[in-house]
Amino acid sequence: MLTIALDAMGGDHAPKAEVEGAVRAAGSLGVKVLLVGQQDVVRRELEQHEGYRELPIEIVHASQRVTMEDSAAKAVRSKRDSSMRVASRLVRDGCAQGFVSAGNTGAIMATAKMVQGVVPGVERPALLGVFPTMLGTPVVLVDVGANVDCDATMLAQFAVMGEIYSRNILHRPNPRVGLLSIGEEEHKGNDLTRAAWPLLKSLHINFVGNVEGRDVYAGNVDVIVCDGFTGNVALKVSEGLVDMFKKLLRESLEATISGKIGYALSKSALSSFRKRLDHSEYGGAPLLGVRGGCIIGHGSSNANAIKNAIRVAAEFSGGNVNRQIEEELLRLSKAGD
Amino acid sequence: MLTIALDAMGGDHAPKAEVEGAVRAAGSLGVKVLLVGQQDVVRRELEQHEGYRELPIEIVHASQRVTMEDSAAKAVRSKRDSSMRVASRLVRDGCAQGFVSAGNTGAIMATAKMVQGVVPGVERPALLGVFPTMLGTPVVLVDVGANVDCDATMLAQFAVMGEIYSRNILHRPNPRVGLLSIGEEEHKGNDLTRAAWPLLKSLHINFVGNVEGRDVYAGNVDVIVCDGFTGNVALKVSEGLVDMFKKLLRESLEATISGKIGYALSKSALSSFRKRLDHSEYGGAPLLGVRGGCIIGHGSSNANAIKNAIRVAAEFSGGNVNRQIEEELLRLSKAGD
Repeated sequence: MLTIALDAMGGDHAPKAEVEGAVRAAGSLGVKVLLVGQQDVVRRELEQHEGYRELPIEIVHASQRVTMEDSAAKAVRSKRDSSMRVASRLVRDGCAQGFVSAGNTGAIMATAKMVQGVVPGVERPALLGVFPTMLGTPVVLVDVGANVDCDATMLAQFAVMGEIYSRNILHRPNPRVGLLSIGEEEHKGNDLTRAAWPLLKSLHINFVGNVEGRDVYAGNVDVIVCDGFTGNVALKVSEGLVDMFKKLLRESLEATISGKIGYALSKSALSSFRKRLDHSEYGGAPLLGVRGGCIIGHGSSNANAIKNAIRVAAEFSGGNVNRQIEEELLRLSKAGD
Repeated sequence: MLTIALDAMGGDHAPKAEVEGAVRAAGSLGVKVLLVGQQDVVRRELEQHEGYRELPIEIVHASQRVTMEDSAAKAVRSKRDSSMRVASRLVRDGCAQGFVSAGNTGAIMATAKMVQGVVPGVERPALLGVFPTMLGTPVVLVDVGANVDCDATMLAQFAVMGEIYSRNILHRPNPRVGLLSIGEEEHKGNDLTRAAWPLLKSLHINFVGNVEGRDVYAGNVDVIVCDGFTGNVALKVSEGLVDMFKKLLRESLEATISGKIGYALSKSALSSFRKRLDHSEYGGAPLLGVRGGCIIGHGSSNANAIKNAIRVAAEFSGGNVNRQIEEELLRLSKAGD
């Protein structure tokens, strides 16, 4: 049985959402969960759940907590007994096969890189986002915020890591990899994309060339590569638009009597629609290139999102993604010699 | 009466959408429209519209047409009698006060810059996008694709131009100007945003600091400044997501009987919702910093979008935006000496 170390004090709704998510995951996914946090607080929360004693859940004590306001540097330097760091250490020491946190993203990335270390050959770990598409197949975007200033070599590594993730975890056969740009032709884009294009072309992947922002949701590509600044903007713009969409839809429907009745009749259809757009269904974002695996949940994660992040962590460890990344990057560096 | 020169051969639905949009604009906005294109083709289209002889519309002949496939360089170099170029020339020569085209964006930008020239003090013209927000107020994003690689000074100029546009054309009092980044604190972001932050802070504008992708649709800021690569990705990602919304919503509603009835009942509410998301309601994107004004419509513009782009062009010329940009940039360059 795989064991996942969960930072129980991470997200905005911690430890309630974390503990409930862990209970659901341990009860249905066949994984063991180590709940890391202040023992008494976590235990009290866990006792709210009937039958938790029968589940593969253990509490691991950590006296400190990283807040959303802490800088990454401070979290790493001065909170050596934080729930985040202890959870990451459990992976490093082989007590767990994956680390999940919905806490301060910058602090998680710094902690995982430092404590767990990077996969040999990886220049910089990258945050991978999973997006729904029009055709129902998921698309991954790498990087969505770990590296704001990138060079072409980093984008090539993102392509390799994203392709392996798409193939092994999302089971896309021969994933189509695109470079996010602003025009389809090779020469379109900025200095970075023009430098990255020939590198991506030379990789042993199914590189389909430049793609545009519209293609993120079109389902015509499986992996989209970009720098972390652009990827993060794309992610956050999408979240904002979904929020606006929900609000305007409700307002439009509530403005007329027929609309109100229509809304009532179509309520279950609308909520299934919302579910398809809801990031919590997709679990957290893997930090690719870190030893042992690290899944970063959204700060606002509810119990369902936490459960799904634990599922993603287990699939990640089970999928041997890191070993394949290491082999492929080694092969590439040899080919480059 | 203001006169607008319209490239009648520009968009995907040209000249039909262009001619119909011109007829609607001339009939309702109190502007005169010069329809520029192949005389016989445009005349034949115009004759489809009853009563066009009473409207302030004139046809100006141009023998060539720039296609979506032409490179900007080719369009400028070898198609000297294109409808695009002739329309731009009419503005330069004072025969019209604004130029509108829904054609090849790169070619329009190159043509307008070369033929009309830039406003004194402007380093690089920038494309401004208008987005709807949750609160109903519009937000402008500068740049959405004219300049893919920017430096901090360019972003400062975009801030000045966007602020003047927001105040004068969208009538936002004391517009709040934000810098698009990936974190609210000053030090968050990439090399470019960190260099631009102090420059924007030093301007005589209501600078609210960094904003994130989520803020584009939140309505808490009136002007958002970014490089053209990031802005274009934000725009295109939004378009793609709206398309996916429409499709998923229809599918979810059609999947059940009650959903189908609900859809039928709420149809008019849903179409008012679509209208609020529809870019054609907002008209085209102004290329700020070009003498005389240039409004670039979406390639897929329908007649309504063309009419709105003509409206934006007329408002732009009437609002003395260029004079204010020139004065403000002159003041800034003096202050910098």
